[in-house]
Amino acid sequence: MNETLLFTALDMAGTFAFAISGAVAARQKNLDLFGIIAIAYMVACGGGIIRDVCIGAIPPVGLADWRYLALALVASALVMVAYPLAQRLDHPVQMFDALGLSFFAVFGAHKALEHGHNVQVAIVLGVVSAVGGGALRDVLLNRTPLILRKEIYASAALVAAVVQVTGERLALSMDWLPWLGIVLCFGLRYLAMRYHWNLPRFSRDE
Amino acid sequence: MNETLLFTALDMAGTFAFAISGAVAARQKNLDLFGIIAIAYMVACGGGIIRDVCIGAIPPVGLADWRYLALALVASALVMVAYPLAQRLDHPVQMFDALGLSFFAVFGAHKALEHGHNVQVAIVLGVVSAVGGGALRDVLLNRTPLILRKEIYASAALVAAVVQVTGERLALSMDWLPWLGIVLCFGLRYLAMRYHWNLPRFSRDE
Amino acid sequence: MNETLLFTALDMAGTFAFAISGAVAARQKNLDLFGIIAIAYMVACGGGIIRDVCIGAIPPVGLADWRYLALALVASALVMVAYPLAQRLDHPVQMFDALGLSFFAVFGAHKALEHGHNVQVAIVLGVVSAVGGGALRDVLLNRTPLILRKEIYASAALVAAVVQVTGERLALSMDWLPWLGIVLCFGLRYLAMRYHWNLPRFSRDE
Repeated sequence: MNETLLFTALDMAGTFAFAISGAVAARQKNLDLFGIIAIAYMVACGGGIIRDVCIGAIPPVGLADWRYLALALVASALVMVAYPLAQRLDHPVQMFDALGLSFFAVFGAHKALEHGHNVQVAIVLGVVSAVGGGALRDVLLNRTPLILRKEIYASAALVAAVVQVTGERLALSMDWLPWLGIVLCFGLRYLAMRYHWNLPRFSRDE
Repeated sequence: MNETLLFTALDMAGTFAFAISGAVAARQKNLDLFGIIAIAYMVACGGGIIRDVCIGAIPPVGLADWRYLALALVASALVMVAYPLAQRLDHPVQMFDALGLSFFAVFGAHKALEHGHNVQVAIVLGVVSAVGGGALRDVLLNRTPLILRKEIYASAALVAAVVQVTGERLALSMDWLPWLGIVLCFGLRYLAMRYHWNLPRFSRDE
Repeated sequence: MNETLLFTALDMAGTFAFAISGAVAARQKNLDLFGIIAIAYMVACGGGIIRDVCIGAIPPVGLADWRYLALALVASALVMVAYPLAQRLDHPVQMFDALGLSFFAVFGAHKALEHGHNVQVAIVLGVVSAVGGGALRDVLLNRTPLILRKEIYASAALVAAVVQVTGERLALSMDWLPWLGIVLCFGLRYLAMRYHWNLPRFSRDE
């Protein structure tokens, strides 16, 4: 598979997964038609816009490329039509959120490297593009940010970003490198949700 | 009226209206002198600063041009002196907010086009400059963001931005085009507040 | 002392103080290992990243320079190990926060001037770099933003930024100018906390 095509596909898949997660969350909060679309678009593109502003990719691609808005519209329409179906899934918001998290951590880190930034910028912005949109959603919807909840979350994105950046620096093959980070991140997040894995914390009263 | 002058006037009028709405909201939350000025300035310039960062207009004009800060100071002083008067208005925050919303949706869309960005960037950033400052205010003051409340809000800004962008693409006369968007947006928002117009939502239990 | 070295030292000291304040706040909210590091880093670098994006210093130095992340890691480790000690301090979050506030108000204003921006940009961005990280922390941790609490807070940063900018315009000696702003800001904030100094507010029912 062509490398540019692969990364575009990852970016689009992450956008779609986050748009679904945003639309479901907005639907649960009983927002109206426009509110659902706005939250879906914001979750899907918020993290990427912060990333693009920080690496100097102006205008941010989430604003300039019609496909991102189109994906948010399709995801919102799907959620409105098929909400009873979505509800039957266990934790639908978290599952799609975990998918978006994995795709964006890898794609965000790759994009920062491609723009000539250093390893640290790439790792931090990989995590930021992965968790930024969701944090915006949670702040606007008055939900406790996922980043502050119990199970491993942003750390999974960190693993994916570190794997991708290290792999690119070692010139590993792009045929399988991105999938390694994605599988690690999604698997870690999925297992953390299922078995309530936590990072250590430090309270006395535990 | 000279075109540049017209748009400068719209921008200043929107800034002033948002500054009033921010100062009244801060006053209602019993903030101190500095808090009122800070919130007034943030509502007035927050959306525009996000817009300018995204279109690459560095430094953002809300920071660099003294007139924006001056307008926020004047609006804050007015609200401090004439608060009993402002309170007698029905929903003073929302009325000034609706004015700022209309002016900024049109001006924001125009400014993005002027900087050479495409139609979608202009529409999205028109809406963002219109709703961004208010969303910041609501998040900081722990109010439910207006964008999530019942009546039509950001959709009204969307109408104004679409009208302005379409009109500029069709090279319609700037003598009346901006006013069309402004009247549509303000009218829609006003009627929505008065008659509790809502976009459809999709709960089962309605 | 060499001028560049002095300002680098101020920046690093502010980063460290804010990282400590963020780590203690995250620890109090019982966040996990990663959450503590993430909040420490965000408080330490959030305001500076907003400043750098607004003055066009891309990529923001808080992302590109490894020393900021390293300081956040060291501060987090210190807080995890020595938390019982930190707790014995009176209001540990506020004390370190006041230190960071003073250093960043002076350094932020200086950096904006150095990048060729005007007096107003420098003053506003001095205040923004000083209060931005803390506001992000408070919004994410669902605490009432310090900027909205009773005692003088952002106004102290404003004093420091105004002193620094005025002094640089008057070409005063950099040997003592930064310390003047820092001492004024920290002293003002400390006294305000100790004696509950407030700016005037305007409620009827006071």
